[in-house]
Amino acid sequence: MSGAIELVESRALVGNPLGDPTVRRVAVWLPPSYAQAPERRYPVIYWLAGFAGTGEMLFSGNPWQPGLGDRLDRLAAEGKMGEAIVVAPDCFTRWGGAQYLDSPAHGNYETHLLDEVLPAVDARFRTVGTRDGRAIGGKSSGGFGALVLAMRHPQRFSAVASHAGDMAFELSALPDLPIAARTLRRHGGLQPFLEQFAAHEKKAGPDYTTMMVLAQAAAYSPDAARPGGVALPFDIETGEIDWVVWQRWRAWDPIEMAAAHAGALRQMKLVFLDAGTRDEHNLDLGARIFVRRLRALGVPCEHEEFDDGHRGTAYRYDVSLPKLAAALGAGPGR
Amino acid sequence: MSGAIELVESRALVGNPLGDPTVRRVAVWLPPSYAQAPERRYPVIYWLAGFAGTGEMLFSGNPWQPGLGDRLDRLAAEGKMGEAIVVAPDCFTRWGGAQYLDSPAHGNYETHLLDEVLPAVDARFRTVGTRDGRAIGGKSSGGFGALVLAMRHPQRFSAVASHAGDMAFELSALPDLPIAARTLRRHGGLQPFLEQFAAHEKKAGPDYTTMMVLAQAAAYSPDAARPGGVALPFDIETGEIDWVVWQRWRAWDPIEMAAAHAGALRQMKLVFLDAGTRDEHNLDLGARIFVRRLRALGVPCEHEEFDDGHRGTAYRYDVSLPKLAAALGAGPGR
Amino acid sequence: MSGAIELVESRALVGNPLGDPTVRRVAVWLPPSYAQAPERRYPVIYWLAGFAGTGEMLFSGNPWQPGLGDRLDRLAAEGKMGEAIVVAPDCFTRWGGAQYLDSPAHGNYETHLLDEVLPAVDARFRTVGTRDGRAIGGKSSGGFGALVLAMRHPQRFSAVASHAGDMAFELSALPDLPIAARTLRRHGGLQPFLEQFAAHEKKAGPDYTTMMVLAQAAAYSPDAARPGGVALPFDIETGEIDWVVWQRWRAWDPIEMAAAHAGALRQMKLVFLDAGTRDEHNLDLGARIFVRRLRALGVPCEHEEFDDGHRGTAYRYDVSLPKLAAALGAGPGR
Amino acid sequence: MSGAIELVESRALVGNPLGDPTVRRVAVWLPPSYAQAPERRYPVIYWLAGFAGTGEMLFSGNPWQPGLGDRLDRLAAEGKMGEAIVVAPDCFTRWGGAQYLDSPAHGNYETHLLDEVLPAVDARFRTVGTRDGRAIGGKSSGGFGALVLAMRHPQRFSAVASHAGDMAFELSALPDLPIAARTLRRHGGLQPFLEQFAAHEKKAGPDYTTMMVLAQAAAYSPDAARPGGVALPFDIETGEIDWVVWQRWRAWDPIEMAAAHAGALRQMKLVFLDAGTRDEHNLDLGARIFVRRLRALGVPCEHEEFDDGHRGTAYRYDVSLPKLAAALGAGPGR
Repeated sequence: MSGAIELVESRALVGNPLGDPTVRRVAVWLPPSYAQAPERRYPVIYWLAGFAGTGEMLFSGNPWQPGLGDRLDRLAAEGKMGEAIVVAPDCFTRWGGAQYLDSPAHGNYETHLLDEVLPAVDARFRTVGTRDGRAIGGKSSGGFGALVLAMRHPQRFSAVASHAGDMAFELSALPDLPIAARTLRRHGGLQPFLEQFAAHEKKAGPDYTTMMVLAQAAAYSPDAARPGGVALPFDIETGEIDWVVWQRWRAWDPIEMAAAHAGALRQMKLVFLDAGTRDEHNLDLGARIFVRRLRALGVPCEHEEFDDGHRGTAYRYDVSLPKLAAALGAGPGR
Repeated sequence: MSGAIELVESRALVGNPLGDPTVRRVAVWLPPSYAQAPERRYPVIYWLAGFAGTGEMLFSGNPWQPGLGDRLDRLAAEGKMGEAIVVAPDCFTRWGGAQYLDSPAHGNYETHLLDEVLPAVDARFRTVGTRDGRAIGGKSSGGFGALVLAMRHPQRFSAVASHAGDMAFELSALPDLPIAARTLRRHGGLQPFLEQFAAHEKKAGPDYTTMMVLAQAAAYSPDAARPGGVALPFDIETGEIDWVVWQRWRAWDPIEMAAAHAGALRQMKLVFLDAGTRDEHNLDLGARIFVRRLRALGVPCEHEEFDDGHRGTAYRYDVSLPKLAAALGAGPGR
Repeated sequence: MSGAIELVESRALVGNPLGDPTVRRVAVWLPPSYAQAPERRYPVIYWLAGFAGTGEMLFSGNPWQPGLGDRLDRLAAEGKMGEAIVVAPDCFTRWGGAQYLDSPAHGNYETHLLDEVLPAVDARFRTVGTRDGRAIGGKSSGGFGALVLAMRHPQRFSAVASHAGDMAFELSALPDLPIAARTLRRHGGLQPFLEQFAAHEKKAGPDYTTMMVLAQAAAYSPDAARPGGVALPFDIETGEIDWVVWQRWRAWDPIEMAAAHAGALRQMKLVFLDAGTRDEHNLDLGARIFVRRLRALGVPCEHEEFDDGHRGTAYRYDVSLPKLAAALGAGPGR
Repeated sequence: MSGAIELVESRALVGNPLGDPTVRRVAVWLPPSYAQAPERRYPVIYWLAGFAGTGEMLFSGNPWQPGLGDRLDRLAAEGKMGEAIVVAPDCFTRWGGAQYLDSPAHGNYETHLLDEVLPAVDARFRTVGTRDGRAIGGKSSGGFGALVLAMRHPQRFSAVASHAGDMAFELSALPDLPIAARTLRRHGGLQPFLEQFAAHEKKAGPDYTTMMVLAQAAAYSPDAARPGGVALPFDIETGEIDWVVWQRWRAWDPIEMAAAHAGALRQMKLVFLDAGTRDEHNLDLGARIFVRRLRALGVPCEHEEFDDGHRGTAYRYDVSLPKLAAALGAGPGR
């Protein structure tokens, strides 16, 4: 496998409130021709991990489950995908992930990615180095990150793919709130919960869901005045939804963001979405709503569905990665 | 067992749009002393079945699972409950239940219950016959019905018990909407779905959930202009929530109704709520929110929780039935 | 519905060790023509409930789930089934069921059924009254009972139907033994387990499975010298299988019984088996093994499979009941 | 992390029938003092992966789930474990694993491990190099492998640990046979099943279970005359158990092997077993039976249980690894 780990030293993350590392491990895959064509420049696909994942973890495969590097090797060997560099950054936090956004509650991951990882990649590898040569994609929280970064930074990216990206928060995130409320209450609040979570190697299902809610709160509703630096969109004692906080979450729902960022999306050479029709977080419905919104706004996009749930769907990258490479004009191996 | 079935012929239900029967089977349990004390008058507890249930079904027990009659026999024999008549009406509809409300989409079940069942019971049995001698309770949709009817008709009832009653609709009903959207879409719409549901003896889980959503739509958001006479709070194609329709549902959320009906609730001699802390529909959180709302409004209430889920919790009636009987001043057996 | 309850006073069950009632409630359904044709005699189909069930419970339906009486009414009304009486006896025990066998551990249910229920039915109703006019069928433990009674008493029955009847015990019963071992150990033995089971209205899944194992032990491996009067086919402390006791169970496996009772089965006018191909107890595989065994022995039989699990498959009676009626020569309604 | 990958070129695996690689990646962890103490020799703990795993995969951790290297680093840093080398070999096969045994159906993995990996480790690292300096352990299939290799090769190993090791096959492996039978039948036999398994990146649950059964058949009941070179212990069409083949499996059940290898086990300085009391494969019961057998044979052993299932229990290595190191006389860091 041709994946390597690049260390990127971040200034943006210095002093981040969760105490996460500032030197980050960025996984990079180079296409087969890279070594043989020393003058050639390549487009780059940024690929974002989902919640609780890192870029490096995406590359970890096994004999029965290929990692991202094995997949790219195979797609290249089969001639299914043009030559492009693939970069998987690390925006993991102690709370499981930053949703690829800056926040006083977890640190500046959007800045890190755009102003540190991108330049480092362009400096260390022979990249095209312009928006026309950059795409961004990912699954779940990674799909969310890809869409939001493409919408907010069209001068950096010209194609985007979201696999079951977080959206339609009332259908996907809201049903998790009662689980988080009960869990936090049972542990006596945010701080005791975090302590036991760190103390136990085995993470129970509701604990995992609770961390996912907390990570979203850190991204969408930071509040320096409250415990953990976040406003929770519910009351811990009763589970009652705090609609004021919830509106802050909603403002980050890609479906709500679409109208204001339609111009950016129209500049994309490809907007691709998919999801499984049994997605446990209803993200297939999210994609349907988003796509309808885009069509109403006159934004072209490609939309696919398949018969599966949310987990174990990396085989769908076989569809999106070649599309992104093609959108970037990635050339053949020789 | 001392349960009997009384037939009540309804005028309120004549011409109901779902074609449900107008002669209704009302299950009645008489306390041990009833036959021996021909002059004595008894308070009455109305007990409402949950979704997809009838009063008569509540009485159907087996050697390992007592029915409501077995339970009442035992409570009486053990001296745990004062002598009261218990009445379980039938407000089942082809869609699974009316939420005990009048609606052009399913017929007038609130009217049937108040203006037909109550007078029939008072006429046929030796009842106290006033609000002081009437309580109402139930579980799930039956708990909802009990609370809503008590709030709306304090001149009829003076005590109320809700076991895991429907409320906090964003936490309990809203997570079902995506299931209904996918199911209706897969069947090609409301009418084809209803046809296949009727045609198949075995009801699949998502089909059952979809019927539950439809029954709520019939109760909360009837709309003569739309298919099936109901406005659905979501788009069938995308699952997107229709917040306008949703507001019509919310208006029937007991938590939202509490403020306007605080006076009625204050007149109750007992307001009792419970739910299991693992309730799959989050109705334990619903009860917590409701109770906090009542306390803010100065309405006294009793609130219990227990370690269980939503189903198979009839053993909790051992707590509520004696409390209701006591609130009504039910006397001992002799 | 045309179901009635007949009381049968049993001598066979007098002094049964579990203290179960000796007066038994036998559910009887009479075909539409019965009242109008006072001279006519009818064949009888005996229908056996599964574990934890009684004949009467089979008749308990609701608007969305027909009971056995509703089903028979409909089959008759649609002209799909010849006129036959259907009788559902009660062989429930405190341990959940007798597998329709005599045993010192639970009492003499085989004798009760054959020498008390059959004569009572023949005496109280206009039945054909010979083996040619009697069939027997049922589901799960009821299917087991039907097959075993047909094999052992071909002079009484001339047709048999088994829906997912217990058999191939290594595939169906053996996987339950570890559950029972752990459960009994956790409760400190048989007696403490039985006490808590009786004390708790809500029966947990493993407790239910444990009772099922105990009921089988009572039927297959009684042992007066051991606690509860049964030899368990496993060690409570370790779960190790006791192969000596297990051989006693195996002797009652219909697959093992088939060879010795091939003559009886060959006398049947119909041997019908089915099971769902997702049966959680692997009883579809059991039926396949049994059918192959019968074919090797030259016993004709009908075998069907369908796409479903073990529970909620009463709709399959629509297939077997008319076949049994036809095998008995049941005539049309008029 | 201090894990490294050593390549071991195997002669034993040349020409293996599944076409698996002959150069094997052996993961090696060196204790903190290794580099600083150039004269010092270390005991070695061989750690075996479970089904579908490789040694290298055990080392793959993430921020929330430590890999084996992270765990060893921490145990060393906390002073909880003596200094020992830990080696995790790779005995993965296309069928998911060899159970660490030689077989004509999958190749000679026992030989590979003993005669190739052990010498290579002793040659390349400063090891004690005798049985007194070698322990073996693992989980699930790895626990099985550890016990069987310790029993068969006491001249090579002097301590052994089994976490939920495969045993009591009637309780653990037999319940999987019906799943495999149905799956193979649905695919039309062994060969079509294997083809579709290889073709689909996502492995369905029953397919995974079927592979586990096939891997065991390759290890326990090879048969050159049958498809795939294995005798299956069941009939594919009916699921009927083939007791002749099953006896071949049983011969490899550690519980059955214990008596004949009691002498070897008595030579161990430590025999440690544990399992979770909710182990889905009943391996807690297996361990109880095994331990009772050992005690009857006068073999000392340590036995623990904990409240968990089969998966996600690597935190238990915190108990076993220090015990094994201590049994080998592993010294402190300095």
